[in-house]
Amino acid sequence: MLPFARVAVIGMGLIGSSLTRAIRAKLPTVHLTVHDADAAVRERVVDLDLADDVTDTPGAAVIDADLVILAVPVLAMMKVAAAIAADLPAGCVVSDTGSVKGSVLADLSEALPEGIAIVPAHPVAGTEQSGPDAGFATLFDARWCILTPPVDADAFAVARITEFWTRLGARVEVMTPEHHDLVLAVTSHLPHLIAYSIVGTASDLESVTRSEVIKYSAGGFRDFTRIAASDPVMWRDVFLSNKDAVLNVLQRFSEDLTALQRAIRWGDGDYLEALFSRTRAVRRGIVDEGQDTGDADFGRRH
Amino acid sequence: MLPFARVAVIGMGLIGSSLTRAIRAKLPTVHLTVHDADAAVRERVVDLDLADDVTDTPGAAVIDADLVILAVPVLAMMKVAAAIAADLPAGCVVSDTGSVKGSVLADLSEALPEGIAIVPAHPVAGTEQSGPDAGFATLFDARWCILTPPVDADAFAVARITEFWTRLGARVEVMTPEHHDLVLAVTSHLPHLIAYSIVGTASDLESVTRSEVIKYSAGGFRDFTRIAASDPVMWRDVFLSNKDAVLNVLQRFSEDLTALQRAIRWGDGDYLEALFSRTRAVRRGIVDEGQDTGDADFGRRH
Ligand SMILES: NC(=O)c1ccc[n+]([C@@H]2O[C@H](COP(=O)([O-])OP(=O)(O)OC[C@H]3O[C@@H](n4cnc5c(N)ncnc54)[C@H](OP(=O)(O)O)[C@@H]3O)[C@@H](O)[C@H]2O)c1
Ligand SMILES: NC(=O)c1ccc[n+]([C@@H]2O[C@H](COP(=O)([O-])OP(=O)(O)OC[C@H]3O[C@@H](n4cnc5c(N)ncnc54)[C@H](OP(=O)(O)O)[C@@H]3O)[C@@H](O)[C@H]2O)c1
Repeated sequence: MLPFARVAVIGMGLIGSSLTRAIRAKLPTVHLTVHDADAAVRERVVDLDLADDVTDTPGAAVIDADLVILAVPVLAMMKVAAAIAADLPAGCVVSDTGSVKGSVLADLSEALPEGIAIVPAHPVAGTEQSGPDAGFATLFDARWCILTPPVDADAFAVARITEFWTRLGARVEVMTPEHHDLVLAVTSHLPHLIAYSIVGTASDLESVTRSEVIKYSAGGFRDFTRIAASDPVMWRDVFLSNKDAVLNVLQRFSEDLTALQRAIRWGDGDYLEALFSRTRAVRRGIVDEGQDTGDADFGRRH
Repeated sequence: MLPFARVAVIGMGLIGSSLTRAIRAKLPTVHLTVHDADAAVRERVVDLDLADDVTDTPGAAVIDADLVILAVPVLAMMKVAAAIAADLPAGCVVSDTGSVKGSVLADLSEALPEGIAIVPAHPVAGTEQSGPDAGFATLFDARWCILTPPVDADAFAVARITEFWTRLGARVEVMTPEHHDLVLAVTSHLPHLIAYSIVGTASDLESVTRSEVIKYSAGGFRDFTRIAASDPVMWRDVFLSNKDAVLNVLQRFSEDLTALQRAIRWGDGDYLEALFSRTRAVRRGIVDEGQDTGDADFGRRH
């Protein structure tokens, strides 16, 4: 059974355009209508033929949809929800792809009319690039998509969204928005924060030039620069809307880093070696679970 | 002109075995004699045919070499240098591949006899894997190799080592050991320290399970686990022998991270967006300089 027949996507950046590409590839009979606030993006979507219809307003995109997915930065969700509220057809399910779920569920619940089923979702997959050219159909393959339905959610709507993401190649998990925001603070938000921070630190030093940082980046630093090249607006919104969980895990990280600093200062080689041995197991778990390649250096060409 | 005709490599892990593979590929007339403290590694080197001779003692490997390269963990350099000191032929050049240069230059100068030219080197290239199976001939292609000769170094020996690494595909730069240790503290040691630390933090949380950390690692965390899977002994040695520079840049990083923490706490979106925009330029510099691929997500398969 096709879970949805007429899908509207608002926001055609990396995630929105990957979604429509994946739908085209795996659910080819679905009718796709999309909108983006940026006229240049809309034009590009037409050129790349990423949807059946591209509308000039968000409302026009949703009028006959049975599924609407908001793929805009987290702090823009409220505005988009308000803009489509009056045009949503009865029985329509509204979902999203936002990287934070507590604030998005609250915003959608506030802006959307009673009777619209809200099933927030977060596909845990992405790259450092953005915009409609960066998307690709296989982005969600074997990745997890987390659903955070409200406590009184329509169970049938949750089942249809589960079927939808499963058909696109993802694996689905359901949890509370609070738990999502804590887990992702650890596996995504803190890593990005640290990467942005270290790249900032390295480029501000007086004693080491920018050119040296670039030349000798293959020692490890270059990996952090990839993450720190992610979209500034998207990530600003993530940190502003998941403040508590991020500050909470950041506090833990700072304490652990201080312990490590102390071990270096006192020359405690056993402490260092024990930690460095323990962390290997996590990598093995990730490769075994299919969440990363086991090839050396991510299979980078040398 | 062939810079060296008879090369001995002590330590046949990732770097030592990449070196002999690169020499075989690019300087095929060079005679290669190698030694490793580990009998299983020596056996594997014979099976993989990575050298002309494999000796059971370090001394036997160097007796007729015109270049000796120590590719062992940084804190093992002293012991290896002492073990070969009596067997080094006159006119021989001794070099290494250690990730720290101040302590290595001091150790080699102390352990080796007068009249032996010492030219420490650090090829800034590697992967998270170790051992003789992990090496490959192209590891040093287009990467930088930093030489840190003592102030009274034999200029001809430095020129020959420069020619040697250039022939292997690397680009050579000369600097003081002190500056090397500061630059690498930024581009390599701090990134590794932070990666080890965050992976440790994530696996110790009570509120988020290890299995959740693994499943949702594609949000960014998985990148850090690759670096944190690097060899524990090698990295223990790096932090113990480059303590001052590492603590120095770690202090700067902590201050910058605290400023970021404050911006999140007070909801200062402009501060966040400005930093996140600035860091993108560093990534572009690295890709333009040929130190990383510009493909999304390092060209990982999805
Ligand atoms: N990138 C990732 O790795 C990733 C992974 C999982 C989830 N997510 C989440 O998915 C969502 C989209 O991220 P993305 O990476 O696809 O971002 P993106 O590439 O920057 O695309 C976002 C698109 O939404 C448009 N937009 C912004 N405000 C809008 C509005 N009010 N109405 C209509 N369109 C609007 C943007 O237009 P402009 O050109 O005007 O900005 C842009 O084209 C975010 O909530 C993000 O947190 C991202
Ligand atoms: N990995 C990198 O990314 C990288 C990059 C640039 C430079 N470096 C530097 O290059 C050197 C080698 O690193 P690697 O990654 O090749 O390490 P590795 O893969 O762990 O190999 C080191 C080898 O040296 C052997 N060894 C240890 N002590 C010895 C001794 N006293 N005498 C003879 N052999 C001994 C080890 O034997 P066991 O099996 O007994 O341990 C092992 O086979 C280190 O100084 C490191 O800092 C590493």
